[in-house]
Amino acid sequence: MSKLALAFDLGGTALRGALVESDGSVVAHASAPTMAGAGSEAVIGQIIALAGDLIAQSPQAEIAGIGVGAPGPLDPKAGIVIAPPTLAGWHDVPLIDILGQHFGLPVRLENDANAAALGEWRFGAGRGSGSLVFVTVSTGIGGGVVADGHIYHGRRGLAAEIGHMTITGEGDRCFCGAVGCFEAVASGTALGRRATRLTAAGDGSQLRRLSNDGDVSARHVVEAAQAGDANALELIEAEARWLGIGFTNLLHLYSPDLIVMGGGLSNGFDLLALSIAAVVQQRAMPAYRDVPIVRAELGDRAGLIGAASLILWEGEPGLALAMAQDDKDSGATADARERGRSPD
Amino acid sequence: MSKLALAFDLGGTALRGALVESDGSVVAHASAPTMAGAGSEAVIGQIIALAGDLIAQSPQAEIAGIGVGAPGPLDPKAGIVIAPPTLAGWHDVPLIDILGQHFGLPVRLENDANAAALGEWRFGAGRGSGSLVFVTVSTGIGGGVVADGHIYHGRRGLAAEIGHMTITGEGDRCFCGAVGCFEAVASGTALGRRATRLTAAGDGSQLRRLSNDGDVSARHVVEAAQAGDANALELIEAEARWLGIGFTNLLHLYSPDLIVMGGGLSNGFDLLALSIAAVVQQRAMPAYRDVPIVRAELGDRAGLIGAASLILWEGEPGLALAMAQDDKDSGATADARERGRSPD
Repeated sequence: MSKLALAFDLGGTALRGALVESDGSVVAHASAPTMAGAGSEAVIGQIIALAGDLIAQSPQAEIAGIGVGAPGPLDPKAGIVIAPPTLAGWHDVPLIDILGQHFGLPVRLENDANAAALGEWRFGAGRGSGSLVFVTVSTGIGGGVVADGHIYHGRRGLAAEIGHMTITGEGDRCFCGAVGCFEAVASGTALGRRATRLTAAGDGSQLRRLSNDGDVSARHVVEAAQAGDANALELIEAEARWLGIGFTNLLHLYSPDLIVMGGGLSNGFDLLALSIAAVVQQRAMPAYRDVPIVRAELGDRAGLIGAASLILWEGEPGLALAMAQDDKDSGATADARERGRSPD
Repeated sequence: MSKLALAFDLGGTALRGALVESDGSVVAHASAPTMAGAGSEAVIGQIIALAGDLIAQSPQAEIAGIGVGAPGPLDPKAGIVIAPPTLAGWHDVPLIDILGQHFGLPVRLENDANAAALGEWRFGAGRGSGSLVFVTVSTGIGGGVVADGHIYHGRRGLAAEIGHMTITGEGDRCFCGAVGCFEAVASGTALGRRATRLTAAGDGSQLRRLSNDGDVSARHVVEAAQAGDANALELIEAEARWLGIGFTNLLHLYSPDLIVMGGGLSNGFDLLALSIAAVVQQRAMPAYRDVPIVRAELGDRAGLIGAASLILWEGEPGLALAMAQDDKDSGATADARERGRSPD
């Protein structure tokens, strides 16, 4: 049996784990509702338990290491989960050290959007490309950039905070306090809010029928637009315009080989794509207009498969893609691994 | 004598050349008005003539190679100047091949903003930092990103087109056709335009006195603000707000160790800095707020010194910083150099 990675995708609602082969195939899968309010020790206990389940499903597996995708902010080089807003009681948790000491295996950590970017790049919509920008559009907007075969990290791993790129002076204030963030105008939340404002409970609109006269969500808009509802199609058009403006910025700033759109709203990608492309044609400088903008392929497994990729890179276990540029840090991590493996 | 680089900064108005030592010091300097309307052969003739002047100034110099900064769009890997708007008759000019064949030396090409970013990173305001974003604010806005010791190129070397990042829905239409480009609201041109609109010929304002009742330029605004003129200070405040919004985006997107502001408007950096910092404090996510934003140090020599850096990197002539990530391309360029050296 070839070497496998244990991969985890630690989200605010679900903790998912898998055993992944070096070709990206998932040989075992398990998940649990994250005990998000119970603090880091409880959740790390869940990770360890899930690892036990997975190993029990595939007892002959030779495990090369553990890759974890977790919500930011986190420091991927130091292996520390800093203060994720969706996980109570996590403050500067040295997750790599903790899991490394428990399992005696190499551990790599990456923020969830970067892990998903890596998954799509290696095994999804970005296979074979030199670089991509992955954009996840759902409750918020997040992103990850792979360039020249590496995750683009920046200082403290904080690059590609694309949801808080200012693209306009209008719209509702973002939770971050600023006005005009990409996320504040183009996320699924923003789309749902616009749909809710456009309609009223009991107005008999298709959007409100779908929402049972409650707040309308992005999912309802996509569903109504697929059925040809005029209100919904207009909302999709406005949404595509904001996405097109943001994507054009990403083309100008990162010049990727392609943009991959994932997240919940990518379920409406077919509805959005033509209008997004029209906005890009109109706004991007000529040299960027032929860059493909495509739908993500791995769905909600992108992060899990990307986390495995942190370990399973070119068949060399432990030599993580994400760190290959930084010899000093690789050394430090190797030291940490040695400590993790020692019997004391 | 240590190895030197021949460096050129090819601009639309001036062609400048220098012999640069590996510590960044300029040992010979020469320049000429660019024959910008005369086509590529004439300008390449100027480069060759200037090289002769420089070599004559320092006949014992052992020249390791030639680094050229030129206006984009250009392809730094292929060594091709694609179609610079400021140079008539340049279309897909294979400048590396042409100069390589003429001189029998390694040649590297980089767009002018990237070259300046590299110069500031190695020898200017970014010395010792792991990464920086260089922003040049003058007639337009350009930029270059150095991360993990490399210029961030993206597809076809087109990354960091930061002047055409949309940051608002308001303001005059950019020459590129879009509304809300960073350049359209925050360049020196935009500042001058706002100053011209705020005043009128013959109104006796300090701005119009400085401009002899003609159009007011950014330089006049800086000069009047330095003298305490209220109009000018208000214009500087508005300018700083736009710069702060754009810089905040750059922090979120690239997460550099610092931002370096160059270009003509950096002459007003002291006036702008506090207000820029206030905008960043207000708009950036907390983890990015402590990133220094500093004034460039190399002035109009940044591009020239950066072009030399393409050759003089860690004392290994020809092993260009900009390409070190890309083994395939380095190989191709080495082949091109071999061809350039061959006697046929």
